[in-house]
Amino acid sequence: MTTSRLEAFSDGVLAIAITLLVIEIRPPELHQGERLADALWTQWPSYLAYLVSFLTIGVIWLNHHRVFTQVIRVDGPLLLLNLHLLLWTGLIPFPTAVVAEHLHGGGEAARTAAALYSGVLLLTSVAFGALFVWVTRDDRLLGRLPPAGVIRAARRRFMLGLVVYAAAFALSWLSAGAALGLCGLMALYYAFDQASVPAAVDPVGRS
Amino acid sequence: MTTSRLEAFSDGVLAIAITLLVIEIRPPELHQGERLADALWTQWPSYLAYLVSFLTIGVIWLNHHRVFTQVIRVDGPLLLLNLHLLLWTGLIPFPTAVVAEHLHGGGEAARTAAALYSGVLLLTSVAFGALFVWVTRDDRLLGRLPPAGVIRAARRRFMLGLVVYAAAFALSWLSAGAALGLCGLMALYYAFDQASVPAAVDPVGRS
Amino acid sequence: MTTSRLEAFSDGVLAIAITLLVIEIRPPELHQGERLADALWTQWPSYLAYLVSFLTIGVIWLNHHRVFTQVIRVDGPLLLLNLHLLLWTGLIPFPTAVVAEHLHGGGEAARTAAALYSGVLLLTSVAFGALFVWVTRDDRLLGRLPPAGVIRAARRRFMLGLVVYAAAFALSWLSAGAALGLCGLMALYYAFDQASVPAAVDPVGRS
Amino acid sequence: MTTSRLEAFSDGVLAIAITLLVIEIRPPELHQGERLADALWTQWPSYLAYLVSFLTIGVIWLNHHRVFTQVIRVDGPLLLLNLHLLLWTGLIPFPTAVVAEHLHGGGEAARTAAALYSGVLLLTSVAFGALFVWVTRDDRLLGRLPPAGVIRAARRRFMLGLVVYAAAFALSWLSAGAALGLCGLMALYYAFDQASVPAAVDPVGRS
Repeated sequence: MTTSRLEAFSDGVLAIAITLLVIEIRPPELHQGERLADALWTQWPSYLAYLVSFLTIGVIWLNHHRVFTQVIRVDGPLLLLNLHLLLWTGLIPFPTAVVAEHLHGGGEAARTAAALYSGVLLLTSVAFGALFVWVTRDDRLLGRLPPAGVIRAARRRFMLGLVVYAAAFALSWLSAGAALGLCGLMALYYAFDQASVPAAVDPVGRS
Repeated sequence: MTTSRLEAFSDGVLAIAITLLVIEIRPPELHQGERLADALWTQWPSYLAYLVSFLTIGVIWLNHHRVFTQVIRVDGPLLLLNLHLLLWTGLIPFPTAVVAEHLHGGGEAARTAAALYSGVLLLTSVAFGALFVWVTRDDRLLGRLPPAGVIRAARRRFMLGLVVYAAAFALSWLSAGAALGLCGLMALYYAFDQASVPAAVDPVGRS
Repeated sequence: MTTSRLEAFSDGVLAIAITLLVIEIRPPELHQGERLADALWTQWPSYLAYLVSFLTIGVIWLNHHRVFTQVIRVDGPLLLLNLHLLLWTGLIPFPTAVVAEHLHGGGEAARTAAALYSGVLLLTSVAFGALFVWVTRDDRLLGRLPPAGVIRAARRRFMLGLVVYAAAFALSWLSAGAALGLCGLMALYYAFDQASVPAAVDPVGRS
Repeated sequence: MTTSRLEAFSDGVLAIAITLLVIEIRPPELHQGERLADALWTQWPSYLAYLVSFLTIGVIWLNHHRVFTQVIRVDGPLLLLNLHLLLWTGLIPFPTAVVAEHLHGGGEAARTAAALYSGVLLLTSVAFGALFVWVTRDDRLLGRLPPAGVIRAARRRFMLGLVVYAAAFALSWLSAGAALGLCGLMALYYAFDQASVPAAVDPVGRS
């Protein structure tokens, strides 16, 4: 098993999961005398859920790629840990659809939807954290172990995700909106954090 | 982050988005005594929407590839700008489905559907334009900055898209058909404009 | 535009189209007192349509790959002709779903479904034939023009597809079953014809 | 036909099939006064089916890759045998959806769903076994034939799958749960068996 094949398969799953999000946004059916513009506005939780989930899976892809550019060996546990990460990431369209359908009604349904959503993101970040700890445990899978400070900083960043998603999960029993807002902020933070990485010359060249 | 990985992920999302368009064309359900042939003809907005959206995403792919053959470095803002472009492109199946379902009825629903459709294409072309401006700002991300005249011509071509999609958006309040026709013409123009690029020898050779 | 990028995008669209076929086979809903086993048998047109369409798209992929291993240059018209081929191939899940839903009832609906199905396959083979004629017109896009006899034989094979799908289209007004059977036989013929190609050493080596 | 193209297409189909599993898990519709949390729990067969099918397709991908790292030549029968494997693997989302919908009711429907599920997995493993026998028949498709003991052990592992899936198929007439449990255990066994392969240095290096 080479890292390039592992990355290609993972990229495929992540690209499909991010693109499947759109099929959960359904064209609204109009009731008697209803205007389409109103019906479209009513679906705002669908758009919001699409946005947050798109950003979240996009950031997972960026992070996945960043980790695997360091990896030069793949062992059995890494294969399983990666499949485990894809299992939770590939599930994200489901809680996204539940939020899209049930956020609007408010009450128990909205809070449960938010709990399901932040719960799946929490498990996704646990899965990613486990993979990262395995990879950086020693230098067996890496060409060269990065400086301890860099690894500690990266682990702290993973830990931050764990804590924030756990907080969102807890918060969802109080306010569905606050819980989902926290998930959205987390994705934004990771996206801009990634964007601060300096430009790297493509080692392979244009293909 | 290498350009080849960025291209592979983007190609994946674009290939999936273009292929997902078909699942919005549903087999018609027949009412009592209705002929299937008639029911299939009634669905013409679905076929038209498939055609225009297929061409539009196909052209985005061609353009995306053309831009990235010049890029040799990827920086953080480019990652975000590319994700932003994929966010809007990946959304296109949704307005396509709305047009397919609501164009036929005419009136407010048809006009709103056309506005949604051309609005999403407008935002897609804004996203692509922003990416292009970032890439061609100076020679940091390009191996060699193309002659200023070439960049100006390419920016004019992006600007044309912005203006035409904005016109289609405005036009949709008057006539849904005219707005969608304009979107279709734009895709055709870009397609044939792309086709006028001279043949290039594959630098990598057959893989 | 390199052939490797063109092939990667086309492979993506074909892999997605072939895999999307399955989502048209729905789990049956049981009526009062109905056994699931009976309900599953009743859906045989879905399974048949899946089989024929899977084989057809699989053969298109094999053929597409065989043609593009010869191509070393991509020009504008080839880009458009390839997008045109993907447009029809990507549409195949739709007539597949129509056949799955309407073959069983017989009568006008079954015949119209068969006509739609063989009609889309006919247009797909026209699109592939046009691409092939463009590619083999002279040696501008090929590294080396194959012997005239080889090209003639390949064009005859494309022509056979055109004639058979046109016959299936005509036949569908008499018998839906016969028309679809002909489409199935055509796919089988192409599959075994492809399989007779001698083994080739991978020029790139294992990646 | 090169092995790299065959692998890329197969990877695409497997990545899409594994990711499509999620669209069979639908957001529940609430009846009057029903709590979303209760409705979500009621869907446990959907989650279980997602888990088992995800693991099964994941293991097929790992195995597929392991076999093809040895293959350096592709001949016609291998193309067809591979397409045949993809045909059954690509079908897995359908029995998964049937199990998700009908396991809960119990009785004939649950047993038939389990029989369909284990039957499709049985045919998938027959297809994979046939491909493996063809590849390892002699050294025409392999760079170097592995020691006879290694091939015998690998064939025994395939044979184990055949026997277990056949047992699950037979068992499904007695107990749907036991049959599905057996399928799940089989996937877990294969997953951890794969994971015991020692780490391999990536021959291509990071791409």
